Amino acid sequence: MVGNRNYSLSPIIMRMAAVAIAVLSLAPAAQAAETGAPAHGVGAAFLWIVIILLAAKLSTLVERLGQPPVLGELVMGVILGNLFLTGLDFFEPIKSEPIINFLAQLGVVILLFQVGLESNIEEMRRVGLRAFWVACVGVIVPFLLAMGLVGPLLLPGLPFNTYLFLGATLAATSVGITARVFRDLGRLQTAEAQIVLGAAVIDDVLGLIILAVVSAIVTEGTISVGSVSWITLKAFLFLAGAVVLGQLLAPRLGALLSKVHTGTGMKFTLAISFGLITAYLGEQIGLAPIVGAFAAGLVLDPVHFRFFEEPEIANDIRDNLHDAPPAVKARVATVLERHADRHVEDIIEPLGHFLAPIFFVITGMAVRLETLFNLPILLVALGITIAAFVGKIAAGLVAGPVNKSIVGWGMIPRGEVGLIFAATGRAIGVVNDEVFSIIVIMVILSTLLPPPILTYLLKRDRSVGLPASQPAVSPEG
Amino acid sequence: MVGNRNYSLSPIIMRMAAVAIAVLSLAPAAQAAETGAPAHGVGAAFLWIVIILLAAKLSTLVERLGQPPVLGELVMGVILGNLFLTGLDFFEPIKSEPIINFLAQLGVVILLFQVGLESNIEEMRRVGLRAFWVACVGVIVPFLLAMGLVGPLLLPGLPFNTYLFLGATLAATSVGITARVFRDLGRLQTAEAQIVLGAAVIDDVLGLIILAVVSAIVTEGTISVGSVSWITLKAFLFLAGAVVLGQLLAPRLGALLSKVHTGTGMKFTLAISFGLITAYLGEQIGLAPIVGAFAAGLVLDPVHFRFFEEPEIANDIRDNLHDAPPAVKARVATVLERHADRHVEDIIEPLGHFLAPIFFVITGMAVRLETLFNLPILLVALGITIAAFVGKIAAGLVAGPVNKSIVGWGMIPRGEVGLIFAATGRAIGVVNDEVFSIIVIMVILSTLLPPPILTYLLKRDRSVGLPASQPAVSPEG
Repeated sequence: MVGNRNYSLSPIIMRMAAVAIAVLSLAPAAQAAETGAPAHGVGAAFLWIVIILLAAKLSTLVERLGQPPVLGELVMGVILGNLFLTGLDFFEPIKSEPIINFLAQLGVVILLFQVGLESNIEEMRRVGLRAFWVACVGVIVPFLLAMGLVGPLLLPGLPFNTYLFLGATLAATSVGITARVFRDLGRLQTAEAQIVLGAAVIDDVLGLIILAVVSAIVTEGTISVGSVSWITLKAFLFLAGAVVLGQLLAPRLGALLSKVHTGTGMKFTLAISFGLITAYLGEQIGLAPIVGAFAAGLVLDPVHFRFFEEPEIANDIRDNLHDAPPAVKARVATVLERHADRHVEDIIEPLGHFLAPIFFVITGMAVRLETLFNLPILLVALGITIAAFVGKIAAGLVAGPVNKSIVGWGMIPRGEVGLIFAATGRAIGVVNDEVFSIIVIMVILSTLLPPPILTYLLKRDRSVGLPASQPAVSPEG
Repeated sequence: MVGNRNYSLSPIIMRMAAVAIAVLSLAPAAQAAETGAPAHGVGAAFLWIVIILLAAKLSTLVERLGQPPVLGELVMGVILGNLFLTGLDFFEPIKSEPIINFLAQLGVVILLFQVGLESNIEEMRRVGLRAFWVACVGVIVPFLLAMGLVGPLLLPGLPFNTYLFLGATLAATSVGITARVFRDLGRLQTAEAQIVLGAAVIDDVLGLIILAVVSAIVTEGTISVGSVSWITLKAFLFLAGAVVLGQLLAPRLGALLSKVHTGTGMKFTLAISFGLITAYLGEQIGLAPIVGAFAAGLVLDPVHFRFFEEPEIANDIRDNLHDAPPAVKARVATVLERHADRHVEDIIEPLGHFLAPIFFVITGMAVRLETLFNLPILLVALGITIAAFVGKIAAGLVAGPVNKSIVGWGMIPRGEVGLIFAATGRAIGVVNDEVFSIIVIMVILSTLLPPPILTYLLKRDRSVGLPASQPAVSPEG
């Protein structure tokens, strides 16, 4: 609209007009005026959303091959993101569109919030210690492997600090993909899934500490124990605070809300607000927003945060039962009551449906197939990738009496966290172009291989946990 | 996350790192690197979303006063947006945050798509001609009033072109607020609502033509009949194309989708994609995106675009009916089947719940109370506002045998369209600061007054259309 109607705003009146227009929600004009960003209309973002959603839906054809939808979304993203290699660069603008990237972030945050809501906090407590060991082994083994062995072996002659950074890159787990695979296959309540999720949270804290330490060593040559302790303390205080506060407040809030008669809208708003605020605060501390969102979902105990809504069908059924035997009536009344007890996940689900595919298609689009064309780099990258995989599979070995391969493969995806490490390393000058490409390939393989392999492992191990047809949350906990 | 981990990226490696990071959905870094926009993390947008949603929910207390929620959202927006007058400028960044403004736009587009889905296309056809007259009178009367009488009278001595632009500003209707009031009160199916919606679509086309003509007169001193005809033709072709294509495709697509067994996700994706694509194409033509979204919703006939989903409760009820008389069983089976027939609006609803309040709070935030402090300007603005109101109320008089006041007041909101006109006028130098302030006040009053007045009129006129408790869509049309 703006693009067409807003002929050529002269710079003199730009500011005032921009404020008036911006706040009346015509983002592009405001963006152009105030930030200098390109002023493609909101329509362009609509178009990209449609393309991504249609691509994501088309990709669910992989379900016919027994694969989880997330794999289809990633692969479709890889295709869209690399079509430019054939000369078709129509989809390239999606990669740098801030709005799409924000929606993707919001999507993965809501996904992890849902995963938290559907996780069983008791189970999580029960496996907590094992998750801690999995996280520690999964950080230390790949770090040492890359820094002390595979790095110097495959990439000889580089400074020690480069190996240090390579090790740090291999340490981080990005839990979004694994969480989605478990969820797609209905296995989120298994001990394996809960161990991986718990370990990923601890992993993120460890990753934060490692990055701080490694960066300090490289830039200042020394570590300040005080600042590292402070980072660690903040992260633990945040997580502990979220858990304690959530556990204290959720039941009270739930009790309060069931007294005042509020619509589902109010519970939806409070739940999603708690999730986003915790993601925001986590980010302020330096943690991944998804870790905050997961913690928020975990502490919002569904039992306290449910709401009652008579199913639409209820009156209709009662009307048709007036001449049924009293015993039948009574039983149906119990059924109606049971189904009136809805949970907050149900109302958040459609939002996740809309936004989560955006994250996975965009993640797939990040895969740069041309990095795979350089054979020497590719071979070294394969070596580093094997180290990365071996380190996490080793972590699975300390997971206790569960399917250890599932835990190990669940820890493998590195995603954006590995790339942030790599980018930081470039920024402070210890990661060169070659090492950067190698890390990108490692991230690609650790993103694309786990979904099919996890699917295979989960299907083989049908004895693990609940069957896929079980409802995602059992209200009586 | 980026803010904390992504220390100082040196410009040299900026580009490559930015691409890698951006596409792995870390919007802020990419934004900073590629567009020069400020790199506040995605977290900031999370915080603003939470504040807006909580404010919107808090505002629904107005429902206790018998007012529609949209009024509460607007008023809450006015409060948040003007707190800076008391020195509290914490909320100011929301106004220029592109992501929030995009979500607001997406919210109003989805709202109008929902309104289109819930509108009855037969009723719309039946009232089509009357809507056309309402639109024409509603554009011509305020235009002539402002240009020929009230403008020269209250603001003497200004160039003719200024009066011309003032008239154009008063002509445009912004239908989002009215649609929401009708919807909040469950009166979307009334003839009055359908006339206002139809007239608003035609209004937008007329507004497009007027803006083109007036701009041409002012900048070139002459009108090219060819270019104006082309603009008109494009707009009509687009609307006719959407209606014809939609009517042709929707039944076929519906039939196809009910043959292949697809989940609700597929129908949701196709429906929302059609809505957003039409909004995008409408914007490309120069129409408001909401007009495209409304047209899309209107042609997606719910009868063809429904889906079947056994209610969750079904098996449970059947299990408890095994010993009931066969007649009861049969009747309950019919009930279950009836409730399995869901419509696409149901799955789009939660998205609207999340996004629409963002639009209305942001619209409220655009209200600049300080413009009301200058008494001479305020008085002139009141005169112009009265002309703006009278012109639209006159339009209601040609609405035929319905409640004419409801139609007239429904046409009053000007919203962002008026401000775009005003900004365009400033850009080409015919609208000065004083006139701009006057237009802003007119827009404020035309935004805030109609919701309570419409609510009063609708409640007084209970005989009009369906009672509020009626379901929003009757499947059998």
